[in-house]
Amino acid sequence: MVQVAPKNAILAISPSHYLTFYRMNIAFLGLGNMGVAMATNLLKAGHQLTVYNRTASKADPLKELGATVAATPAEAVKDAGIIFSMVTDDAALQELCTGPDGLLQALPQGAVHASCSTVAPDTNRRLAEAHTRQGAHLVATPVFGKPDAAAAAKLWLIMAGDDEAKQKLRPVLEVLGQGTAQDFGTDPGAANLVKLCGNFMLGAAIEAMAEAFTLAQKSGLDRQQVYEFFTGTLFNLPIYQSYGKLVAERHYQPIGAAPAIIRKDLRLVLDEARTYTVPMPFANIIFDNLSTTVAKKEDVDWAGFAERVAENAGL
Amino acid sequence: MVQVAPKNAILAISPSHYLTFYRMNIAFLGLGNMGVAMATNLLKAGHQLTVYNRTASKADPLKELGATVAATPAEAVKDAGIIFSMVTDDAALQELCTGPDGLLQALPQGAVHASCSTVAPDTNRRLAEAHTRQGAHLVATPVFGKPDAAAAAKLWLIMAGDDEAKQKLRPVLEVLGQGTAQDFGTDPGAANLVKLCGNFMLGAAIEAMAEAFTLAQKSGLDRQQVYEFFTGTLFNLPIYQSYGKLVAERHYQPIGAAPAIIRKDLRLVLDEARTYTVPMPFANIIFDNLSTTVAKKEDVDWAGFAERVAENAGL
Amino acid sequence: MVQVAPKNAILAISPSHYLTFYRMNIAFLGLGNMGVAMATNLLKAGHQLTVYNRTASKADPLKELGATVAATPAEAVKDAGIIFSMVTDDAALQELCTGPDGLLQALPQGAVHASCSTVAPDTNRRLAEAHTRQGAHLVATPVFGKPDAAAAAKLWLIMAGDDEAKQKLRPVLEVLGQGTAQDFGTDPGAANLVKLCGNFMLGAAIEAMAEAFTLAQKSGLDRQQVYEFFTGTLFNLPIYQSYGKLVAERHYQPIGAAPAIIRKDLRLVLDEARTYTVPMPFANIIFDNLSTTVAKKEDVDWAGFAERVAENAGL
Amino acid sequence: MVQVAPKNAILAISPSHYLTFYRMNIAFLGLGNMGVAMATNLLKAGHQLTVYNRTASKADPLKELGATVAATPAEAVKDAGIIFSMVTDDAALQELCTGPDGLLQALPQGAVHASCSTVAPDTNRRLAEAHTRQGAHLVATPVFGKPDAAAAAKLWLIMAGDDEAKQKLRPVLEVLGQGTAQDFGTDPGAANLVKLCGNFMLGAAIEAMAEAFTLAQKSGLDRQQVYEFFTGTLFNLPIYQSYGKLVAERHYQPIGAAPAIIRKDLRLVLDEARTYTVPMPFANIIFDNLSTTVAKKEDVDWAGFAERVAENAGL
Repeated sequence: MVQVAPKNAILAISPSHYLTFYRMNIAFLGLGNMGVAMATNLLKAGHQLTVYNRTASKADPLKELGATVAATPAEAVKDAGIIFSMVTDDAALQELCTGPDGLLQALPQGAVHASCSTVAPDTNRRLAEAHTRQGAHLVATPVFGKPDAAAAAKLWLIMAGDDEAKQKLRPVLEVLGQGTAQDFGTDPGAANLVKLCGNFMLGAAIEAMAEAFTLAQKSGLDRQQVYEFFTGTLFNLPIYQSYGKLVAERHYQPIGAAPAIIRKDLRLVLDEARTYTVPMPFANIIFDNLSTTVAKKEDVDWAGFAERVAENAGL
Repeated sequence: MVQVAPKNAILAISPSHYLTFYRMNIAFLGLGNMGVAMATNLLKAGHQLTVYNRTASKADPLKELGATVAATPAEAVKDAGIIFSMVTDDAALQELCTGPDGLLQALPQGAVHASCSTVAPDTNRRLAEAHTRQGAHLVATPVFGKPDAAAAAKLWLIMAGDDEAKQKLRPVLEVLGQGTAQDFGTDPGAANLVKLCGNFMLGAAIEAMAEAFTLAQKSGLDRQQVYEFFTGTLFNLPIYQSYGKLVAERHYQPIGAAPAIIRKDLRLVLDEARTYTVPMPFANIIFDNLSTTVAKKEDVDWAGFAERVAENAGL
Repeated sequence: MVQVAPKNAILAISPSHYLTFYRMNIAFLGLGNMGVAMATNLLKAGHQLTVYNRTASKADPLKELGATVAATPAEAVKDAGIIFSMVTDDAALQELCTGPDGLLQALPQGAVHASCSTVAPDTNRRLAEAHTRQGAHLVATPVFGKPDAAAAAKLWLIMAGDDEAKQKLRPVLEVLGQGTAQDFGTDPGAANLVKLCGNFMLGAAIEAMAEAFTLAQKSGLDRQQVYEFFTGTLFNLPIYQSYGKLVAERHYQPIGAAPAIIRKDLRLVLDEARTYTVPMPFANIIFDNLSTTVAKKEDVDWAGFAERVAENAGL
Repeated sequence: MVQVAPKNAILAISPSHYLTFYRMNIAFLGLGNMGVAMATNLLKAGHQLTVYNRTASKADPLKELGATVAATPAEAVKDAGIIFSMVTDDAALQELCTGPDGLLQALPQGAVHASCSTVAPDTNRRLAEAHTRQGAHLVATPVFGKPDAAAAAKLWLIMAGDDEAKQKLRPVLEVLGQGTAQDFGTDPGAANLVKLCGNFMLGAAIEAMAEAFTLAQKSGLDRQQVYEFFTGTLFNLPIYQSYGKLVAERHYQPIGAAPAIIRKDLRLVLDEARTYTVPMPFANIIFDNLSTTVAKKEDVDWAGFAERVAENAGL
């Protein structure tokens, strides 16, 4: 089968065929643990990658794999058909887009920006409008999974934004995750809200384990055995297994995400809860425990907020 | 292969061989939805069953399958090597054991009582001592799973109590659940505490979904789609799928367990938390929501406490 | 004016005339800080006092003031018309009444027992029935105030129980507090429930100050100035002033009541809340903070639970 | 004694002498219930008042008392030595100052703006800087008290801002409240934070009463009697008496402040708590209960959030 397509075209074909793609020009902005892992998978899939990171040295491993390194966001995106961004928070994304040398300065017509960061729904909504004004599109594309899942191309992805832009993005996303990116409609903020709900539910699972394991331990049971029983039966699920291990061992290393980062996510959850007048008592508790962890300057993974339960029980 | 063993002997052999057992004399006390399903599986496995229930008519289906029906707990257990009990709460178990015509009146030497009810750890501890004084044993044997899991012999079982008694019980339990019953040591109360932790963690998962789905709905998302996404990916687990369906549809029928029953379980959790001075803020919230559901006399499954979140958000 | 009355008669006359009373035979059981202060006021008012305390040495100061010291509760009450008890908890009160040499063994016909301890409503209800069976009466008579208020005869008292018995008790109570004891009806438990509500509301005031002062401090304000402003204006009330001082200074000495004692009171509040299905989220928080204070074995006044707020804020 | 002072001079003299003041030119912006009451007292004290309100008709009663009515904020302040503003929220204050025809357009040199609204500390900080740039001063001057306290000149006032400006303001404030305005330093935001703490503590008192009275009622006591006992003894304080009456009667009329207004205040409290990483569990509960009241569109005084407790108890 001969495929004829203009340079940089994106074809919506089945996943098993994606290696027959023309090489896409993709820009990847934001090279933290998640970003590097995702960018690496895009390179491996044969795409042509231009990368940018505020701290340039983070780009070195990708340069060795063949990526071009840009000095500014604007330079990174100027020839890109697809742009990925994965940064820490709303301020960083805003700067990346609208700052001096921000990507909005050089956004090519028709480009699609997959905005992967965990940010406020309104941030993506506003930036999506700015993209549209320049003839391009921002699609909110949050991802679920830790850096190791990103490296193994086992992320879960979701999308929301312009329908045509999502269509263009879909085949590229398939090299990053498992299954197809779930489509949450045309409002970019909707995908971010779903992402925030997911992080909240993770936090709830962690707090629930912390309370259960602590009670079990203080009553004389072996914390580890209780963990193993539950995560081998009723809660036989990777997220309970991986976070539960930290909680069971009360050892919150290595740091997948810092407490301040996920505290920001819970803050965004509570912001949305305010907007829509939804009391969320569990979210309050998780946020408060993360706040204490931040206030105490603990150098742990965010799941380390589970230590609040142990401390309050006098352990 | 010829097996030679005294009448009623229990051999610890591999599950695949259990049909070669001698028929055991088993008493089953308490024929609610869970009890009937478990007793049916014991009958199907070839055991000889004597059953008892306060409301006698519940025994009819088992009688048709070959079970003998006893008029009192004492009568039910008088020839039994193994006794199962599965009743609603501590008071019912106490009555079953120590009431007039209670099983302690007729407990055979060496009998093993698998106490499956969700009760306070101390209740099983005290009753275990009473059994021991009569040359028999009570092993706390809580089960995890709804009636349909019980019917499908897919319960998860755990045990705690006298080591030899657990050894006798193990092969009989294998027809009731999946995998081997996890052993939590010689303190019968320990198994109950683990069971309570499990019900608490289920409640936490329900509340977390209720908060997340309600926020999603009020922000404009489709509650059902959010449910389907999460339970197909990060929370791809039967308990999230089955309880989450109720929460997503806001329809809490049929009633697997009444709110008052699980409120009692959460009360027991909080009792243990008091005993061991473990603050459990999530448990407080679940208990309070169950209390409101009971106070409002809502005729729903216990997961219906999730409606508190919807109501508080003005839905 | 000449008063003629039989020995031990109690006349309902105005407070200013109480010195004209015939001396009453009063037994006082339980000589902690509160008990000693109250018993002293009864002695000063001219009553004839027989006292009892488990640790006998506590009775020494009262002996010097003229009190008779009894070796057992039964001995203390055998000639008494009025009995006061003020002990730590339900178990101590139960022992005092129904233990070997308990007061129920020697309760005179027609005696009135003012049960002042903070106990479960049901404890006083059950003991009241036992008194009635012996031709005497227990009136629940909780008191509000710290030991210094007791010494200054500035307690607030409330009563519930048999109407005639309350009538007999009323003039004696007037030397202990300010104003007249408020009557909460014939159910002795009712007065205890009001007492528990009061301790809960005190706890809520303390937690509220802790949160406010901690926020003020972390924002750069002077904790002490904020305390002084509020307790000089909107919250110009002794309980805010006295407890607030501890919270403002973060110094919880001397110990008016140990955390374990008031944690017991909050536990009783939550027990009643369970019985009547009343979710009380503030009570949960106060109880949990007291639990942590107990779990950490902190040697502070119960208001020291306010330190949980400071700690959680990383102070 | 003869006082000689330039027109519009403000003399720091004792309260009893304020009638000897030269008439001050005062502008009063924002004529809600609080504003009208305060402005009336300024008129009664002999000051010359120019008033402004977005809805002009609210100014009619003041016009009859001699006030001049201005069409815009700028017009109102153009000859003023002292400016008061009392509006609903941050947006309204911002508009009043920086909007078209905002007061910053016509602010006289040396004028002092007493900003009385309950707003975010940062709002007053930013506006104070804008005033300073124009040679004038904004002093944050929050007030505590309901409209009837304002009418009776029994408000409690606090101040923070430029020292000289506070000095000028002090004698004028004395006709509005009881006692002297407490000085919280030179950071205008500090006074707002204290105000927010006060509203939070009021909310905590209301929730505590709601929980206590509901428990009492469900246990069989008379809600009204419990209210009367506590507010006549331990909680003998106007705020407990006035708000407690609403809670006792479960009748939240008339509306002193709408739930949405005080929900905004609690939101500001929680915003500050985020900024300074101070977990405030009581504040979460009050805010959530106010959110439900807003979500249900209940037409009640803000204290009506106490109904959440009654509802959750099934009343």
